[in-house]
Amino acid sequence: MDLDTLSTDLLAGNRRALARAISVVEDGGPNATKLVKSLFPHSGKSHLIGITGSPGVGKSTLVDALITEIRKDGLKVGVLAIDPSSPFTGGAILGDRIRMQGHTLDKNVFIRSMANHNHAGGVALATYDAVRMLEASGYDVVLIETVGVGQSELAITQTADTTILVLMPGSGDDIQAIKSGIMEVGDIFVVNKGDLPGADKSASEISSSLELTNFATAWRPPVITAVSESGRGVDQIWQSARNHRAFLQESGQILERRKFKIQAELSELVAAIARDNLKTSMENSKEVQKILDQVAQHELDPHTAAQDLVQDLFGQPA
Amino acid sequence: MDLDTLSTDLLAGNRRALARAISVVEDGGPNATKLVKSLFPHSGKSHLIGITGSPGVGKSTLVDALITEIRKDGLKVGVLAIDPSSPFTGGAILGDRIRMQGHTLDKNVFIRSMANHNHAGGVALATYDAVRMLEASGYDVVLIETVGVGQSELAITQTADTTILVLMPGSGDDIQAIKSGIMEVGDIFVVNKGDLPGADKSASEISSSLELTNFATAWRPPVITAVSESGRGVDQIWQSARNHRAFLQESGQILERRKFKIQAELSELVAAIARDNLKTSMENSKEVQKILDQVAQHELDPHTAAQDLVQDLFGQPA
Repeated sequence: MDLDTLSTDLLAGNRRALARAISVVEDGGPNATKLVKSLFPHSGKSHLIGITGSPGVGKSTLVDALITEIRKDGLKVGVLAIDPSSPFTGGAILGDRIRMQGHTLDKNVFIRSMANHNHAGGVALATYDAVRMLEASGYDVVLIETVGVGQSELAITQTADTTILVLMPGSGDDIQAIKSGIMEVGDIFVVNKGDLPGADKSASEISSSLELTNFATAWRPPVITAVSESGRGVDQIWQSARNHRAFLQESGQILERRKFKIQAELSELVAAIARDNLKTSMENSKEVQKILDQVAQHELDPHTAAQDLVQDLFGQPA
Repeated sequence: MDLDTLSTDLLAGNRRALARAISVVEDGGPNATKLVKSLFPHSGKSHLIGITGSPGVGKSTLVDALITEIRKDGLKVGVLAIDPSSPFTGGAILGDRIRMQGHTLDKNVFIRSMANHNHAGGVALATYDAVRMLEASGYDVVLIETVGVGQSELAITQTADTTILVLMPGSGDDIQAIKSGIMEVGDIFVVNKGDLPGADKSASEISSSLELTNFATAWRPPVITAVSESGRGVDQIWQSARNHRAFLQESGQILERRKFKIQAELSELVAAIARDNLKTSMENSKEVQKILDQVAQHELDPHTAAQDLVQDLFGQPA
């Protein structure tokens, strides 16, 4: 594969090159590294918005409505619809569904599902790189949608600048969110399906709970009641996202956030390299195979073995 | 904390010591390492059974019914009910629910929920160690129940010798399981809620699909229709689990499986050590902070930075 041509085409906004490049970074390996290396200088300018919430709260409808709002401002929008955890929930299907909802012919909208588990460091690492491909290809806003609200989904939305937490009335999710301390990660709260009974109650419970939450910054997350189906409240969500982005820039928080994200990414990349080194050694080194056998025979415990292996792999004590 | 006394008490079957020890390994760190080191020689003899499936298929009822079956054979049973991914699905509540269902007074049953995310290497690593605590404390069978069927849940059930995949009729899970290639990981398939319409159809679809699956060993997974509520089919599940264990031992597969598991665990432990080393360096090393700044300024891409960091941390090229 000619990675130089791929880079050039991607930078020129070629959609096929972009699709190809995302596949390359999903697969990982030396090609992914080369591609990221050449395109990284062209990334870092877009507004990255994470959207998360339990299944069934209407995230994909909200994403669809948000695309419409963002396009009104003439901005290019990329969407990554991610299903990191489950072969059962059908992340790929989700992406397809959105794709059919009216933005298909819009050349300034690019939607991609990621349900790929090949990347050595998992889908979170692949997401960082896929976002970079979209940025380098000129997408002003990147929406990162995750199905579910587990730890790994949160890790993915936290690759974003702005995190939107989507809830719906009567699901009990609002109470769970409050209990589980998940409030701290949301920059914007959306009570979706706001025409259902209990919507106002949910919104006011979330608001009260936010008043009691200790936030690290001066940003106070708005609670927005929306009906994504009809578009009600969606302009307000987009406005809040832009306000949040402006806040991050004016307060200097955006650098803090990005540094924090880079730490997390580097930590996972270093862990992935360690794993890869071990894998190679397990196949080739007699010394490493001996350690493995000792653990299998219960002569050596795994924690001590891991420390020995680090010494063996990297030539110094853990 | 006196870890020696804790070890001695745990080996003597003291339940409070066991509960304490599991908390220690959940927390990770030097105490966890010491405890595992001293108890590892006493582990490795129990039958480890993983139970997984989508929410709502009746896993906890099945676990409850299985405990009853296993106790008929006079064996001690430990249960780890694990919710690795979501603050919303309430793993802890699940464990509490089982605990109340009639085995509370049985001193040969120990049930523990793990919803703890503190362990550096994640809940999968904590599970390996928690299983060891149960084994050292004399539990003949350990049931490892995970809520959900995502990749991380599968990783956890694969810490087991025998994996039971629980499905229910009409959920579409059977079709999804077949499509997603999840069939390969199940050693026993249970169509639970077998009194619902469509149970026979689900079971026969799974059976046909299994006939087309390439298995690595001579074991052919049985498909069992069960009604956990009434106990129907549960004796058959337990019998199949024992058959599977016997197969693993007679064919020598059990050593293969355990070696594979040890490789996976060591890989995650080595990755965790790499992460920890990096974290310490990020706080203390000017060189490492400089690399971080360069990435934040988009002067250096994260992949190259990670390779530089490995060299820096461990003194040799990645």
